[in-house]
Amino acid sequence: MRALDLIIKKRDGESLSPEEINYLINSYNRGLIPDYQMAALLMAVYFQGLNASETNALTAALAESGEVLDFTSLEKIVSDKHSSGGVGDKITLVMAPLVAAAGVPVAKISGRGLGFTGGTIDKLESIPGFSAELSVEQFMALVKENDIAIMAQTERLTPADGKLYTLRDVTGTVENISLIAASIMCKKIAAGANAILLDVKTGRGAFMQSKEDALNLAEIMVRIGKDMGRRIVSVVTDMNQPLGYAVGNALEIKEAVETLSGEGPADVERLSIILGGYMLALAGKVRNAEEGQEELLKLLKKGVGLQKFKQMVASQGGNIDYLEDPSLFPRAKFLVEVHAPREGYLREIDAMRFGKVAVLLGGGRYYKGDEIDPSVGVVLKHKVGDKVKQGDTLACIHGNDEKIVGVAHKDLVHAFTVGDEQVEPSPLVYGVVPPFPC
Amino acid sequence: MRALDLIIKKRDGESLSPEEINYLINSYNRGLIPDYQMAALLMAVYFQGLNASETNALTAALAESGEVLDFTSLEKIVSDKHSSGGVGDKITLVMAPLVAAAGVPVAKISGRGLGFTGGTIDKLESIPGFSAELSVEQFMALVKENDIAIMAQTERLTPADGKLYTLRDVTGTVENISLIAASIMCKKIAAGANAILLDVKTGRGAFMQSKEDALNLAEIMVRIGKDMGRRIVSVVTDMNQPLGYAVGNALEIKEAVETLSGEGPADVERLSIILGGYMLALAGKVRNAEEGQEELLKLLKKGVGLQKFKQMVASQGGNIDYLEDPSLFPRAKFLVEVHAPREGYLREIDAMRFGKVAVLLGGGRYYKGDEIDPSVGVVLKHKVGDKVKQGDTLACIHGNDEKIVGVAHKDLVHAFTVGDEQVEPSPLVYGVVPPFPC
Repeated sequence: MRALDLIIKKRDGESLSPEEINYLINSYNRGLIPDYQMAALLMAVYFQGLNASETNALTAALAESGEVLDFTSLEKIVSDKHSSGGVGDKITLVMAPLVAAAGVPVAKISGRGLGFTGGTIDKLESIPGFSAELSVEQFMALVKENDIAIMAQTERLTPADGKLYTLRDVTGTVENISLIAASIMCKKIAAGANAILLDVKTGRGAFMQSKEDALNLAEIMVRIGKDMGRRIVSVVTDMNQPLGYAVGNALEIKEAVETLSGEGPADVERLSIILGGYMLALAGKVRNAEEGQEELLKLLKKGVGLQKFKQMVASQGGNIDYLEDPSLFPRAKFLVEVHAPREGYLREIDAMRFGKVAVLLGGGRYYKGDEIDPSVGVVLKHKVGDKVKQGDTLACIHGNDEKIVGVAHKDLVHAFTVGDEQVEPSPLVYGVVPPFPC
Repeated sequence: MRALDLIIKKRDGESLSPEEINYLINSYNRGLIPDYQMAALLMAVYFQGLNASETNALTAALAESGEVLDFTSLEKIVSDKHSSGGVGDKITLVMAPLVAAAGVPVAKISGRGLGFTGGTIDKLESIPGFSAELSVEQFMALVKENDIAIMAQTERLTPADGKLYTLRDVTGTVENISLIAASIMCKKIAAGANAILLDVKTGRGAFMQSKEDALNLAEIMVRIGKDMGRRIVSVVTDMNQPLGYAVGNALEIKEAVETLSGEGPADVERLSIILGGYMLALAGKVRNAEEGQEELLKLLKKGVGLQKFKQMVASQGGNIDYLEDPSLFPRAKFLVEVHAPREGYLREIDAMRFGKVAVLLGGGRYYKGDEIDPSVGVVLKHKVGDKVKQGDTLACIHGNDEKIVGVAHKDLVHAFTVGDEQVEPSPLVYGVVPPFPC
């Protein structure tokens, strides 16, 4: 086999066999195929696409490029949850402890935030002492012990995916749905969970801005998961306005704790319960998603979700004093409010702008490896559908650099649209793939 | 400017400005843009194409990446001829001396043969002592002194084209008509001639197998040349059967000498005269191509073309004894004949197979840098349209390795098609761009 022949084959619209794809990924991972040939192949894939069999083969080859976790010794269905990335998305922090509390182990490996979307690891690391830099062995032991652990992506898993993504990022080949699906799914496959819940975000604060693209991605990923023998469900959810009120790392931890205490924003609680309900049903813990939701609501009210969250944080070195008294979190130096320009109903809150402002304030990364300031962010005071009067506070910016807070303020003024007529906020969920129960 | 943004721009079907293309080529040539980004860009170009302005800008940037020759001090129209590559194509060896003998200087820079097509330099180097490894200064001095010189492509000219071609060759991005046109034309522009004749071959022994593709390439190249202020004409010519009878380096030198002596194959003489006629007209030496042809036929008959050829060979170190007595050329050890399988008319002689057999015998290169055996090749005894009897010799294989000669024989048996009805051979010329006189 020669890489050149395979590039030309794909360029000319033919499909590659599983053996050919395996050869390409394997050789690339071992440095036997140079970046320039892989770059040409990726651009050919951008134009010609990958069919189902090719996408499966790519996912498998990427997954098998490193260690693959195996939880069979637990003799339980182990669950994993992935979000395609949103603004204010702290659902994992609420849902994972609840699902674990319901007796379904959660083994989550998570990447760090990049671009306008936050990362669960970054949020958790705002808790002093918390570490997600676990070894695979520590991670598996914690899942066994506590039914829950969250580990940062490690190079021991799917190294070829890391190498390939780095190349895609600098060659204009990120935006292909099969490559996106394979990159997400290979990490889920390597992470070893049997039951996978994918939250595919859509809307102005998501990578997939259109519902059709999100649904397409959801379908491709579910197909891959099923073909690889996993229990899998994909839920397409709204990301037009931020989830909850808080955007920013420590600010979101506080909001997650509030939600686990039964005092959080309605949308965060609702979506966590909905997704968790699917997860319990997927794991066979309940008969259907509705039953799962009821079970989780009960656990939430009893406070066992919060207990499980604290147990996880403590087990990974975090100081749970901060969870019991969130006022201990360092506060940003500057708090500046954004006010309503007129009376009316909030029609739109541009999640993408909030995400970008959070990065600007220092709460996210422009480049891999950038330091994160856990204290900064934005807290909404109103959400879409609310009635506001002129001068009402719409949001409060938390920042540590006066100039940047000024820039953020100017920007966020345009993030709100106020109209005369009342509007319903977008639904939380647009669709479930496959139609559930599956 | 960032390479990534320009890759995405081209990928998305937008056109690049001349400044952007210049930036890309310049930076790539200086190693500031890595191969993998250029490979992704080339594949995007493969799918999205380049418009006229982009192709011109690419040609200019490639031409200006190295030295650009300037013949203005000669105060004459200097001519150059290029063939897109054929089998048995020794036209340059006949036409160039005739044109020079007519008083139009010929300054030809030529690549070496690669793949199934031969190279003029390789053929000339079968004359002991001959060297095409001239410095730019030697080359220009010879053009001034003799009105003719042939130099091998040097890295001082169009280095970015060499680098880009090497990358295209291993990334499946050779087959794009704009990239092909720019790669040919940048070398012609840098070589400094004011009058350029392009012989675009089409047929089963050519890179451009279809007439439409050949005509399209001819048009693109003529447009580039005109936009860059050159006198230029492109002639689309036949390459279904080999040109003349001989395929192989020393064998073709002998045939060129025979043609310059008025005793060569009709097609070689005819095409050399036709193309030379265009060249004289292009250079303003005659009023039209027909007048040019008459002039060249006269010179051919007087033998001054052969004298000019000898002068060129001698000036470049070649031993002209071999031209005066071609029996001095070393002969291949094995001569094996291919016979007609039945009586009938020769309908087809597959030029591509002849080209590939010549390489197999050692007369061409599989890889850059392969040594060439000047003595090997194939000599046809009949051409398309000839009537043959069963057992008649159709061709004679000249080889130095008995096994390989055997393989060549098996292959060439299939290179001939004999039918019952008489056929006309394909016309020598399919079209001229622009319609001449222009």
